[in-house]
Amino acid sequence: MSKIMPPAHPFDTSYLRDADDGDKLKEECGVFGVVGVADASNFVALGLHALQHRGQEAGGIVSYDPTDGFQSARRFGYVRDNFTSQKIMETLPGELAIGHVRYSTSGNKGPTAIRDVQPFFGEFAMGGAAIAHNGNITNANALRRELIERGSIFQSSSDSECIIHLMARSLQRNIPERMEDALRRVEGAFSVVAMTRTKLIGVRDPLGVRPLVLGKVGDGWALSSETCALDIIGADFVREIEPGEMVVITDKGVESHFPFRRLEPRFCIFEHVYFSRPDSILGGRSVYETREAIGRELAKESPVEADLVCPVPDSGTPAAIGFSLQSGIPYAMGIIRNQYMGRTFIEPTEQIRNMGVRLKLNVNRALIKGKRVILVDDSVVRGTTSRKIKEMILDAGAKEVHFRIASPPTAWPCFYGVDTPQREKLLAATMSEEEMRDHLQVDSLKFISIDGLYRAVGETEGRNDECPQYCDACFTGDYPVRPADQIDKGFEMKPAAE
Amino acid sequence: MSKIMPPAHPFDTSYLRDADDGDKLKEECGVFGVVGVADASNFVALGLHALQHRGQEAGGIVSYDPTDGFQSARRFGYVRDNFTSQKIMETLPGELAIGHVRYSTSGNKGPTAIRDVQPFFGEFAMGGAAIAHNGNITNANALRRELIERGSIFQSSSDSECIIHLMARSLQRNIPERMEDALRRVEGAFSVVAMTRTKLIGVRDPLGVRPLVLGKVGDGWALSSETCALDIIGADFVREIEPGEMVVITDKGVESHFPFRRLEPRFCIFEHVYFSRPDSILGGRSVYETREAIGRELAKESPVEADLVCPVPDSGTPAAIGFSLQSGIPYAMGIIRNQYMGRTFIEPTEQIRNMGVRLKLNVNRALIKGKRVILVDDSVVRGTTSRKIKEMILDAGAKEVHFRIASPPTAWPCFYGVDTPQREKLLAATMSEEEMRDHLQVDSLKFISIDGLYRAVGETEGRNDECPQYCDACFTGDYPVRPADQIDKGFEMKPAAE
Amino acid sequence: MSKIMPPAHPFDTSYLRDADDGDKLKEECGVFGVVGVADASNFVALGLHALQHRGQEAGGIVSYDPTDGFQSARRFGYVRDNFTSQKIMETLPGELAIGHVRYSTSGNKGPTAIRDVQPFFGEFAMGGAAIAHNGNITNANALRRELIERGSIFQSSSDSECIIHLMARSLQRNIPERMEDALRRVEGAFSVVAMTRTKLIGVRDPLGVRPLVLGKVGDGWALSSETCALDIIGADFVREIEPGEMVVITDKGVESHFPFRRLEPRFCIFEHVYFSRPDSILGGRSVYETREAIGRELAKESPVEADLVCPVPDSGTPAAIGFSLQSGIPYAMGIIRNQYMGRTFIEPTEQIRNMGVRLKLNVNRALIKGKRVILVDDSVVRGTTSRKIKEMILDAGAKEVHFRIASPPTAWPCFYGVDTPQREKLLAATMSEEEMRDHLQVDSLKFISIDGLYRAVGETEGRNDECPQYCDACFTGDYPVRPADQIDKGFEMKPAAE
Amino acid sequence: MSKIMPPAHPFDTSYLRDADDGDKLKEECGVFGVVGVADASNFVALGLHALQHRGQEAGGIVSYDPTDGFQSARRFGYVRDNFTSQKIMETLPGELAIGHVRYSTSGNKGPTAIRDVQPFFGEFAMGGAAIAHNGNITNANALRRELIERGSIFQSSSDSECIIHLMARSLQRNIPERMEDALRRVEGAFSVVAMTRTKLIGVRDPLGVRPLVLGKVGDGWALSSETCALDIIGADFVREIEPGEMVVITDKGVESHFPFRRLEPRFCIFEHVYFSRPDSILGGRSVYETREAIGRELAKESPVEADLVCPVPDSGTPAAIGFSLQSGIPYAMGIIRNQYMGRTFIEPTEQIRNMGVRLKLNVNRALIKGKRVILVDDSVVRGTTSRKIKEMILDAGAKEVHFRIASPPTAWPCFYGVDTPQREKLLAATMSEEEMRDHLQVDSLKFISIDGLYRAVGETEGRNDECPQYCDACFTGDYPVRPADQIDKGFEMKPAAE
Repeated sequence: MSKIMPPAHPFDTSYLRDADDGDKLKEECGVFGVVGVADASNFVALGLHALQHRGQEAGGIVSYDPTDGFQSARRFGYVRDNFTSQKIMETLPGELAIGHVRYSTSGNKGPTAIRDVQPFFGEFAMGGAAIAHNGNITNANALRRELIERGSIFQSSSDSECIIHLMARSLQRNIPERMEDALRRVEGAFSVVAMTRTKLIGVRDPLGVRPLVLGKVGDGWALSSETCALDIIGADFVREIEPGEMVVITDKGVESHFPFRRLEPRFCIFEHVYFSRPDSILGGRSVYETREAIGRELAKESPVEADLVCPVPDSGTPAAIGFSLQSGIPYAMGIIRNQYMGRTFIEPTEQIRNMGVRLKLNVNRALIKGKRVILVDDSVVRGTTSRKIKEMILDAGAKEVHFRIASPPTAWPCFYGVDTPQREKLLAATMSEEEMRDHLQVDSLKFISIDGLYRAVGETEGRNDECPQYCDACFTGDYPVRPADQIDKGFEMKPAAE
Repeated sequence: MSKIMPPAHPFDTSYLRDADDGDKLKEECGVFGVVGVADASNFVALGLHALQHRGQEAGGIVSYDPTDGFQSARRFGYVRDNFTSQKIMETLPGELAIGHVRYSTSGNKGPTAIRDVQPFFGEFAMGGAAIAHNGNITNANALRRELIERGSIFQSSSDSECIIHLMARSLQRNIPERMEDALRRVEGAFSVVAMTRTKLIGVRDPLGVRPLVLGKVGDGWALSSETCALDIIGADFVREIEPGEMVVITDKGVESHFPFRRLEPRFCIFEHVYFSRPDSILGGRSVYETREAIGRELAKESPVEADLVCPVPDSGTPAAIGFSLQSGIPYAMGIIRNQYMGRTFIEPTEQIRNMGVRLKLNVNRALIKGKRVILVDDSVVRGTTSRKIKEMILDAGAKEVHFRIASPPTAWPCFYGVDTPQREKLLAATMSEEEMRDHLQVDSLKFISIDGLYRAVGETEGRNDECPQYCDACFTGDYPVRPADQIDKGFEMKPAAE
Repeated sequence: MSKIMPPAHPFDTSYLRDADDGDKLKEECGVFGVVGVADASNFVALGLHALQHRGQEAGGIVSYDPTDGFQSARRFGYVRDNFTSQKIMETLPGELAIGHVRYSTSGNKGPTAIRDVQPFFGEFAMGGAAIAHNGNITNANALRRELIERGSIFQSSSDSECIIHLMARSLQRNIPERMEDALRRVEGAFSVVAMTRTKLIGVRDPLGVRPLVLGKVGDGWALSSETCALDIIGADFVREIEPGEMVVITDKGVESHFPFRRLEPRFCIFEHVYFSRPDSILGGRSVYETREAIGRELAKESPVEADLVCPVPDSGTPAAIGFSLQSGIPYAMGIIRNQYMGRTFIEPTEQIRNMGVRLKLNVNRALIKGKRVILVDDSVVRGTTSRKIKEMILDAGAKEVHFRIASPPTAWPCFYGVDTPQREKLLAATMSEEEMRDHLQVDSLKFISIDGLYRAVGETEGRNDECPQYCDACFTGDYPVRPADQIDKGFEMKPAAE
Repeated sequence: MSKIMPPAHPFDTSYLRDADDGDKLKEECGVFGVVGVADASNFVALGLHALQHRGQEAGGIVSYDPTDGFQSARRFGYVRDNFTSQKIMETLPGELAIGHVRYSTSGNKGPTAIRDVQPFFGEFAMGGAAIAHNGNITNANALRRELIERGSIFQSSSDSECIIHLMARSLQRNIPERMEDALRRVEGAFSVVAMTRTKLIGVRDPLGVRPLVLGKVGDGWALSSETCALDIIGADFVREIEPGEMVVITDKGVESHFPFRRLEPRFCIFEHVYFSRPDSILGGRSVYETREAIGRELAKESPVEADLVCPVPDSGTPAAIGFSLQSGIPYAMGIIRNQYMGRTFIEPTEQIRNMGVRLKLNVNRALIKGKRVILVDDSVVRGTTSRKIKEMILDAGAKEVHFRIASPPTAWPCFYGVDTPQREKLLAATMSEEEMRDHLQVDSLKFISIDGLYRAVGETEGRNDECPQYCDACFTGDYPVRPADQIDKGFEMKPAAE
């Protein structure tokens, strides 16, 4: 069952943003495409599986074969559960395919909400094209309204659908030029993988907010959100697609264009902290190493005497290892993660407190008892989970609990393709570090500084406040693209003077 | 899995027409709508259940409620299996709802082919609208090509989607006028039920090829393909919507318009013979009575001495009763239909011949043995089933087998919303009545005459060849609307001189 | 979810009997077996499909193949939905197979209730055996209690499981003798089809209450509840298994034994009236002809002036035809049955009365209006449906309604394998024919007399009250086997003096 | 579809043991029970979720409530997917419940194989009982044969079913005594949790091979395979059930019995190495700490110069941390585990080698390149995975690869409740340590010594060869209980002289 249209605000798709009540920021998408190899869709399935951490709600694959034309399969659930059967994969023949995984942004999972699952397809006078989009269009509401007034009919509630309608109305005579035309009207963050009957196309927005990399697999080519998905298909990592670059790949090779006005790049720094997989390579070194370096910086900035350094599993692990290596305090698994997490159980009685977190995590009681424990986590969003973990650790008899956080305080929502709570629900939006420590009732709480984070990603001078090297809006409120739709809906930007 | 686009013929949707290998013509759709009653979607579910014989592949319902807006559920399978759960029906609130059942025109039943299931919905600048269409648009390919060239993106492979795109591009300022605008561009047969946030709309094409009736239910109103669906919801039958009429129904009442150029009506005569349910009322009397009258005409035109008159169940039953009553030959159930038919069983060995038909039908052996049997069937399409039935009857020891057919020879395909085999597969397109008798190897084979059929439907003078009272193109090749798309694809009309 | 054990009455399985609130008696089972043909399980699937009217809840097949041993598949739902896939049927190899269909006797359909689905299998010291049972064991509770006290563990709540436990404890050295041993302890009605690794076995209880027939298919043999299932597999009907007979069939042929004390046969007369399919042969003529004869008897016994004779579809059809042929009053389909019945729809509002029956049946309003109508039905159980049908007919404008019933008043429950309401819920248990007429508010109501029924089944002298030719306990209260378990639970037999 | 009986060897259930082709030993079961708390089944669901690592194929819960009696639900799949819906849990009311999770020992997952899922239930003359068994009965074939000869009918192919049949035939007058009676006939390893209408019962075999612990939850009690499942329900860990002890728990408290002949305990040492969860407490300290200690011992016994210590995730992690802490070589995540593993993907082309392992694991290429790497794994079973991991590491450019294994060579199968390959498939059964190094082609390969392992679990003197403190048969071939069924089938024990 899908709500075709919310009644009061005909162009408002904000309802898609409010469903998450978890306590992590969530990347919304991963994209992958391959050309020039037999059974391309099987490569795409593998690539999407390796990108599953970027979107777990649903996935889709479109393939093209001269005999069967464009074919599509879109499903809710994990890639492993949908794109592993012979029966499905046989329906996706050809040497050219693209795919998409997306994060669940709403509770609607009924059969017709499948129309929000990408890739999107459009039939144009010169043939069909499919696109998969990672990012977020910040002027989508205005574009949608304009397109509807001209007679376009939207199939989905997804912002990304604007791109295909803009392409349909472009006056250009071939699909790559129509895509340039469309993307010039789009504001925000986008890494797009697209395909026609003969071409695999990749584009990154001028700021390069979201990642996109190029790989070589046999005689063919692959485009992927991250390098870890090149590894799974045995592809060699060639290079990152540059901010503002469009690559058009055919069996003759890779053509590169720069259709947009050039801007200074602002890659998302949170990809280093949390979103990307630790075995992916960003900027020439493994994300794991960067996270370990964050832990080392944190140990330098905010040392504390303790018996054990424990990660909040699994995302805090590399930083905790770095903190231990820098500080010399032994690393230990003080919290064990249940790998069979899933749906919510029915709470039997009031005897069970904090059951939600118990389903996922259990304290290694015999180890923790009587110890001074440093807990390393990647970020604090609402603070709800941090508080529960602290209680579990104290219940188990820890003598002291010190939180060390591998990112600066998250004080502003992301409008570039990450699912963030509204600003007022971000703990750091309303509290200072000290107030947060009181709120969480821990012995100490320290976040890495913004300059410490920049140093850990390799900027030895720290952040360049005149011209920041990364998009760090979630920490600083410094938004490189004006979030027009959000401002229309009442979002207040940080005053310029601040 | 749905084929997004066949590769070679980008605007050709003819592949949708070739899948049926059954031996009956099949109505493609039933439509139903209701306004002004609480829980309108539950009424629609009941109405569609009563219209299930018009389309068994899939069904959909759209409802509107001021709080929840437009809501939609579309499912493959029977209405009874999909629209009976509290869980689904609760998602379709409101006092205004429309629905659609459709016949399976292709083997594609994967999750994305659900996009071909109606009602279709479009969001326009002045609000949303949903439409459900029974019939066939004979210039759909040309319209689709034109719309794509202007930048429309089609969601489905259904001809009916053209209507909503034409509406999206209309310059008119309200939805009923946009619908008039759109339908004036459409050629072919259509009975449409549509809805906006406040209006239930019904339209019949100027020839009135497909049925559409108006009913009163409590303080509200209903539109339905047939009266039998009014009965199931306890509605009173008010009148038929007239050919070329548009009704716009609100809580203030029923407004009637005639937006099209007036033409002499040509209602489908096959609705009387086979498509409509025997308990529906067409032209003031029950379809059952008309069919009984056909049997009486047949007994007068083609009498034969025999021991028993047996129907080919279930569609031949009323005509067989009429034949028996007219001839005085006892009526009997010589063939028993298994009411648990379904998927195809695996044939164990070659010992079983004609298993397909045995799954559905069994001869009442002890009754038939040694008898001269008249079998009454509604029509002969390919002749494959007729031949198998004849063999079963002879195997069971019948002394003679005489076929009497309650329609004239089906020699031409229907292009107005009925799933017909290509012309060369119609037995009567290539054989005379006598050749068909030889082919089927029966003792006699007689079809009702075209005039006999007209007499049975109440035209006492028979067919008016100058200005025929019905569409009987499937028997005569006299097509009241030029089938433009088919002619583009090579279909040859009957020479005018003939 | 299955209730393993009701708490208060540890040996009472009566809860299985009370779930039906329909208004028809329901046969509980059909059995089928085949030996000596390749892919025996495919034949069994077809046979069970033809016997589906005897049990629609669930079905099971056991096969034996020297390589794969005994294999089993048991499923809820129709045969056509479960035993038609290559994937399932390949798991049931071999030349020997048996199967069972059962009626839903309880609402429990969860995964573990599948253990109540037959055939049952037991591994004995000398090898395995599977059995499928049609009928009912009247001393099952006592047997079950005895077996549990000796250490048997029951897998199901089915009475039929007693047979396999009795076999497991028999001192005999081969399986057919163990089966004789077991069945000698069993009271009630049983037609059993069983198999070992090499033998197909069929047994009928000494009274022969339930049917069982032998057929020849190629070089092999088949056992079936009814002949219609022989037809579907192309088998020739050889003969009925005699009351009290056991046949043991191997590739050497058919051996016949009579292991029980001989009794006068008492075949169930209701098989003629309602349970068996009209195309099956019982006592040398088709069940259809017997039912037509019942209609003729009824017309002789209880004539009435009217315009139309209409069946209550579908079970009243043959008797209505007979009534029409005898009386000369035209036969017509005044009530149309919706062939897409299914789950219960949600009632939209109180405007819809009698929706339950409307889902299945609709009056042919235009035909019925102003007419005097004779409605012929097979039986009246609770009378609830009869009442609703009468109302629908009157709503449609009928001038008079006369009910004619093709069986005597059903005043006593069946304890021999038929699902009957408790006695106090049977309309005829508490009312005279005249009271029933008042209750139903019809112009007349007449049941066939018990002697009329006997004449129609060929007993020209009517019922022999000294030694009745049939089991007619449901009409007369004359139970040929004492229903011991029921009497333990408080059932009161008809006083002997009556 | 389940194979009811393998044809040639009627009492041989060995086919259940051969299906695993993975490269880990797998615990076969976890048991949990609770009494004296409202909604007991919800506690059991949580406990089973925490024990999911002990068995992932299927799970079952039985509950008892005075109103509803015994109720049962058994399902394939994870606890989180089955026992979290209100609908299921409402069918399991009461204050007393037990549950079981089991490992997949065969590929049969069809509907009837559900009968192999525990708890098993039996109805006895004095009432019902349900049992859940962790372990393995080494004389099950002989018992099964004996029981079948006496007339028991087995429902499943599970060894554990013998216990309930032995109980059914016991002459004792109450259920706990019947259970003692039954378990005295049983040889092998068993930790049993059982229930009657009023009692929760726990038993451990005289050697105490499998774990079983007692917890206090509110006013009630819990029994669990491991303490981590007490944590999840907020229960306090009271004590381990002792080897040979039976506890009978009612609302009056815990009664303790020792019904078996006393033996020296032989707890499974592999529970410390791999099976139990790291946050469980065994012998007074966390399993995590024992594993870290194993890593320290290994670093002392087999040091090597290297740049990084990396675990093979996830089971090698604690020992790798211990190795790093002891050796001073930095710990790092050189191999990243994909947490979305699942079904097998279709291999697109031959370009992808080792895809199986790539689905689960990816090398952190940028980190590993040019480094000397120590890989710490928990065990080597067949060696297939170790070999693939080595290749991935070398492909990524590692300079040296050193394997350190946290257990001695696994050279003998386990017959006490663990799924082990046949002896000839164990790498260590046919190769020396040096041959294994050559086979795996790594720079060095060292296993911990048997005495080193005993020291790590707290036996400072190492193994007492006269009277070993643990069952270590998988390493030493010293089987504390004669595996009678296996010897019957040809298994050869280690010669006593060795």
